[in-house]
Amino acid sequence: MADTIAAVATAMTASGIGIIRISGPKSREIAGKIYRSKGGKKRIENVPSHTIQYGFICDEDEIIDEVLVMVMDAPRSYTGENTVEIDCHGGVLAMKRVLETVVKYGARPAEPGEFTKRAFLNGRIDLSQAEAVIDVINAKNEYALKSSISQLRGNIQRVIKEIRQGIIYQIAYIESALDDPEHISIDGYGDTLKGEISLLKEKLNGLLDTVREGKLMKEGIKTVIVGKPNAGKSSLLNLLVGEERAIVTDIAGTTRDILEETIVLHGISLRMIDTAGIRDTDDVVEKIGVKKAVENAKDADLILYVVDSSVPLDENDKEIIELLKDKKAIVILNKMDLQQQVTEEDLKEKTNHPVVAVSAKEEEGIEFLEAKIKEMFFEGNLSFNDEIYITNMRHKAAIEDAKRSLELVENSIEMQMPEDFFSIDLMNAYEALGSIIGESVGEDLVNEIFSKFCTGK
Amino acid sequence: MADTIAAVATAMTASGIGIIRISGPKSREIAGKIYRSKGGKKRIENVPSHTIQYGFICDEDEIIDEVLVMVMDAPRSYTGENTVEIDCHGGVLAMKRVLETVVKYGARPAEPGEFTKRAFLNGRIDLSQAEAVIDVINAKNEYALKSSISQLRGNIQRVIKEIRQGIIYQIAYIESALDDPEHISIDGYGDTLKGEISLLKEKLNGLLDTVREGKLMKEGIKTVIVGKPNAGKSSLLNLLVGEERAIVTDIAGTTRDILEETIVLHGISLRMIDTAGIRDTDDVVEKIGVKKAVENAKDADLILYVVDSSVPLDENDKEIIELLKDKKAIVILNKMDLQQQVTEEDLKEKTNHPVVAVSAKEEEGIEFLEAKIKEMFFEGNLSFNDEIYITNMRHKAAIEDAKRSLELVENSIEMQMPEDFFSIDLMNAYEALGSIIGESVGEDLVNEIFSKFCTGK
Repeated sequence: MADTIAAVATAMTASGIGIIRISGPKSREIAGKIYRSKGGKKRIENVPSHTIQYGFICDEDEIIDEVLVMVMDAPRSYTGENTVEIDCHGGVLAMKRVLETVVKYGARPAEPGEFTKRAFLNGRIDLSQAEAVIDVINAKNEYALKSSISQLRGNIQRVIKEIRQGIIYQIAYIESALDDPEHISIDGYGDTLKGEISLLKEKLNGLLDTVREGKLMKEGIKTVIVGKPNAGKSSLLNLLVGEERAIVTDIAGTTRDILEETIVLHGISLRMIDTAGIRDTDDVVEKIGVKKAVENAKDADLILYVVDSSVPLDENDKEIIELLKDKKAIVILNKMDLQQQVTEEDLKEKTNHPVVAVSAKEEEGIEFLEAKIKEMFFEGNLSFNDEIYITNMRHKAAIEDAKRSLELVENSIEMQMPEDFFSIDLMNAYEALGSIIGESVGEDLVNEIFSKFCTGK
Repeated sequence: MADTIAAVATAMTASGIGIIRISGPKSREIAGKIYRSKGGKKRIENVPSHTIQYGFICDEDEIIDEVLVMVMDAPRSYTGENTVEIDCHGGVLAMKRVLETVVKYGARPAEPGEFTKRAFLNGRIDLSQAEAVIDVINAKNEYALKSSISQLRGNIQRVIKEIRQGIIYQIAYIESALDDPEHISIDGYGDTLKGEISLLKEKLNGLLDTVREGKLMKEGIKTVIVGKPNAGKSSLLNLLVGEERAIVTDIAGTTRDILEETIVLHGISLRMIDTAGIRDTDDVVEKIGVKKAVENAKDADLILYVVDSSVPLDENDKEIIELLKDKKAIVILNKMDLQQQVTEEDLKEKTNHPVVAVSAKEEEGIEFLEAKIKEMFFEGNLSFNDEIYITNMRHKAAIEDAKRSLELVENSIEMQMPEDFFSIDLMNAYEALGSIIGESVGEDLVNEIFSKFCTGK
């Protein structure tokens, strides 16, 4: 890994500042060739690490841009290598020209994710931390961000390492006993191991228990709004969307087909799907709409059932209430500003689901809805600081693999197989978990993971 | 200007790194409240200026992001004030959350251009340099970038200051003479002044002479491709466009309606307009197309007349050659890979315009075309380093104002008006030029100029 790489690390869109990042043994040398200080005397080769220099990027006599140059020597840099970052003007052409100049004087254009890959290969971060970098960048809500930051800080690494240590201890013991039966007894070890494995499995199950919440954090809650026509479904959606529309439009690439709108309700993403009002109808087109609403509801993480409190319940409501069985659902009693024909108690009893009274028109009651959603999906503990959530499906699969291997050990113990059989499956579990943090993983997997990055990271 | 401002200085698009910029007296204090170093001991309040600190941005116990913090104290910063820049992960939410935290602890969200406005108000740069910042960011071709960088480095400021000095010297002399007629004689001063004004006007004319080239650099050359049907107009366009398509698509906001395609040919932007083939026709729709082609050609900075060299010239060509009269035009003799029926000499004689032989199919000859365009529009001197080009129409107007005022002085001399009449118009010229560099300009103009900036700059 002797070459020096470079890339634009900010977005290639006109903005105030752009960053060209250089990493590798020749970083200082290359920057030195193209940097000129105001007085012309300062040399990048000689400045102290972790300092900021003002000046110009030049290609011989031609001045390319006015810049700040940040020098960060190994190992105290993002990649763990010698690094120079050039802050230039954030014009597309300015960034491009500075990068071209850096490349002209000896750097190689970096591949997507190559800086982070080097950080991993240099041992500055593990694979779970590297993956957290992409998740931090792509985080679309507060909890996804928090969970990624926690992973970035090595919290997943820590718990995985701890479990692996437990496993390797058992392997080591068995191997030692088999090697040196005179001094280390393995009699009745099956029972001891059984207890240990049960503890290890408990830890793995604890992690797997967070997968559902982790997935909801990362991907959002698929939320379907149902109700009779005119119950106020669309105004509720508009109210919710309006509240944080700024965030939604800020995020590039937010999926918005006709049906779906992603909103962020104080840190939780809801992928809202508005549906046609459900009622018994002979109209063919409307029938299709209703059928779609029913299908969507069946597939939802959460159903919001909007009821017009000023109109008595009827057969159509009965049909909808049927849909809510065995689902997470919240009944939203809307139009509380009008004369009430349906009460909260009424609905609570009929649906067996929590009821929240709101007035979409008066914009009241939304905070209760939000609290209820938090309570239902995150058991109220979403104020987390360092809890661990498994949000990465690769990690989930590895944990499940490890768990299966431990179950095979349990089987072997049960069937009184020779002890060296235990070791094989224990080792499989150890390696499966190792793949999460990037120990004993193949080059292909590493390449696969870093190809998901943007250039410059 | 006692408050401290903050904004995201990079584009709000997912990328490797995002920068949150803070400027004002409380920059260090605010950063200190939310920064935590790895060991927890380092305090932003105490680190040396122009150093880089690694750590975390926190809101009390909550960790927002892993960051680098750059401290740059007044006056050695972009704004000339105490500045802190936080490099965080380039996720939209990460940047937003870091900015929110900075604001929570005492900064005010900056208005567009407010950082550069402060740099101007603090006297670190003049108004022409401030305007160059926007031009650098928006530069769409090499020469626009070079010219903006030159302006940013104060080259326009220098020449304007020099001319103003010449004017103020004359004003001072007249005023002194009028104040103290016993010691300073003003007899026959009109003639001296006339000579001086003629020199000053020459300098202003020199600047005005660059306006056309400056405008072409900044906005590109309106280039219309004409020719008979099947002469190869579209393949020429495709060839030209293809050569540097990457640059075109890189630039956000590049205008592309159906007719127009902007290409950058080694540093020069050509706004290419492809037209319908021109021929005598009875078809109504085709007639409209031909009419449009003719209109476009009349309005062009440059006409590229494409001729199929394998087909003899006819009446339609005659009509086109008529269009080229009094215009800048290049005749492109295409299909040079086929048997020639028309020669370069032939066309040169008939059109009185330069002829370039190319083969769009074989992709040959394009470099001659490019050289010819440079020669025609920039008199071959586009390899400029520090030449001054007036690219800003506000500057052009101010120079014209100043020139008019100097002409009024000439009139007054001619009409033997009293000397204090000279001073008034000299002062007007002085102030007009002052508006270019931001001396004696009103607050409204300053606000108008900085409102064109993006936030964070």
